[in-house]
Amino acid sequence: MLDEAARSETRVWFETLRDRICRSLELLEDAFAGEDAASLSPGRFAYERWERAGGGGGVMGTMRGRVFEKVGVNVSTVMGSFTPEFAKSIPGAATDGAFWASGISLVAHPRSPHVPPVHMNTRHIQTTKAWFGGGADLNPIRPDAEDTAAFHAALERACAPHGAESYPRFKAWADEYFFLPHRNEHRGVGGIFFDYLEDDFARDFRLVQDVGMAFLDVYPKIVVRHMDRPWTAEDRAYQLERRGRYVEFNLLYDRGTQFGLKTGGNTEAILMSLPPVVSWP
Amino acid sequence: MLDEAARSETRVWFETLRDRICRSLELLEDAFAGEDAASLSPGRFAYERWERAGGGGGVMGTMRGRVFEKVGVNVSTVMGSFTPEFAKSIPGAATDGAFWASGISLVAHPRSPHVPPVHMNTRHIQTTKAWFGGGADLNPIRPDAEDTAAFHAALERACAPHGAESYPRFKAWADEYFFLPHRNEHRGVGGIFFDYLEDDFARDFRLVQDVGMAFLDVYPKIVVRHMDRPWTAEDRAYQLERRGRYVEFNLLYDRGTQFGLKTGGNTEAILMSLPPVVSWP
Repeated sequence: MLDEAARSETRVWFETLRDRICRSLELLEDAFAGEDAASLSPGRFAYERWERAGGGGGVMGTMRGRVFEKVGVNVSTVMGSFTPEFAKSIPGAATDGAFWASGISLVAHPRSPHVPPVHMNTRHIQTTKAWFGGGADLNPIRPDAEDTAAFHAALERACAPHGAESYPRFKAWADEYFFLPHRNEHRGVGGIFFDYLEDDFARDFRLVQDVGMAFLDVYPKIVVRHMDRPWTAEDRAYQLERRGRYVEFNLLYDRGTQFGLKTGGNTEAILMSLPPVVSWP
Repeated sequence: MLDEAARSETRVWFETLRDRICRSLELLEDAFAGEDAASLSPGRFAYERWERAGGGGGVMGTMRGRVFEKVGVNVSTVMGSFTPEFAKSIPGAATDGAFWASGISLVAHPRSPHVPPVHMNTRHIQTTKAWFGGGADLNPIRPDAEDTAAFHAALERACAPHGAESYPRFKAWADEYFFLPHRNEHRGVGGIFFDYLEDDFARDFRLVQDVGMAFLDVYPKIVVRHMDRPWTAEDRAYQLERRGRYVEFNLLYDRGTQFGLKTGGNTEAILMSLPPVVSWP
């Protein structure tokens, strides 16, 4: 399927969402009033364009600030042909490895152990089939019931127009996906995960847009609740240790990481998800 | 093949080598005379026994000291039956998944950026076949020609009785194995890697013993050359960044890590290889 209109619309959406999210996170940097606010400058995103050898490329946006120790927001639009080996595992690519994919991916690692790290990504992929995928999950160092409820409620509202069965299904999918078997632990407090949504372009694209808007609405509110609270050296040590779980998940299990590394994506952009400082004590 | 004598001999060797290595590394802790020697106590190994649900278990030895920020020396002897899926990838296990495996695995992460991290492991595995595998590689933060030459020379001497072709073959195997395709970078300055050595138990077991003794001879000498040298904050920052490559290799590519996590090994013992503090800046 070669649907140029869908390619153009989805790509523009992912780039628009990126602009809105980055602006919103920069405003949090400005609003920061924690104890070392005076000695630290508000962070600003830097953008780096990259090109993929096989076709397409992306823009890696990164900010290292006073609220966000490291946050990466990547948009990429890549196309070409999967290797025959990899094509076997991709819907609609077994006999024709040609593909086109566009998406946005965000991972935020706040400086404060009280502010939860978060991940959100959505994408549109075309092979001989075409589908949407994505997800969002919250990864607090120490879970907070109010944050967890607010995060899930926002995602539930985003899923509602997609059908009453969507939210429970995508939430269960996240619980299954964001799991570390070797630790017998979930990563974070969940969220939603979905993939291979190919039934109805308009309805599925709306879901992807609504998930982006829900994220944009709820995450800054969660950050604001906690960002000015002081923390202890013990809080920080525990944060670095919990970040290790995030690394383990991304390198051992994450599909997006595998997809990116195996399709010649930009390594720096893919591994931008890894936390700035981590410990395995 | 059920060869009880081979099981007993190899297991005893791995445990003996562990005792000798741990003692040797503790002596380095005692000998440390770097600038903060007076304020830090010499490290000592702590040992923790673990049992594997499917059969067998091991002892995880760890030391957090003033020369070695974190070093793990694990011996394990495990047995049972591979899952049918995993058995397909193991020689001699396709039709009968029963296995027995014993080995030693060591990873050292020195505190000083001048002292190179190192890895060494050897193992004996029995399915319907029986073979030895192992390897050792040096992972300097900034390569030092003299260390690299000494490390390779020691391994070459260890391989010599195994046949003139062994060292170049195992060295090339290490160059191929200790490689990060997504970075297009080798991990460290190489060493040796070998697997599926099943031709001659006595000769192959001697190789495994000689590799262990070579490690025991050469690595402490390399440590002593550098351990008392002062370092800068920049050296430290670069060390933490290079440690990230080590994590990427172990979680994305390392066979031992995959083997351990997929056969219900002890997660803490397997991931003991991960550095104590790491950064992805």
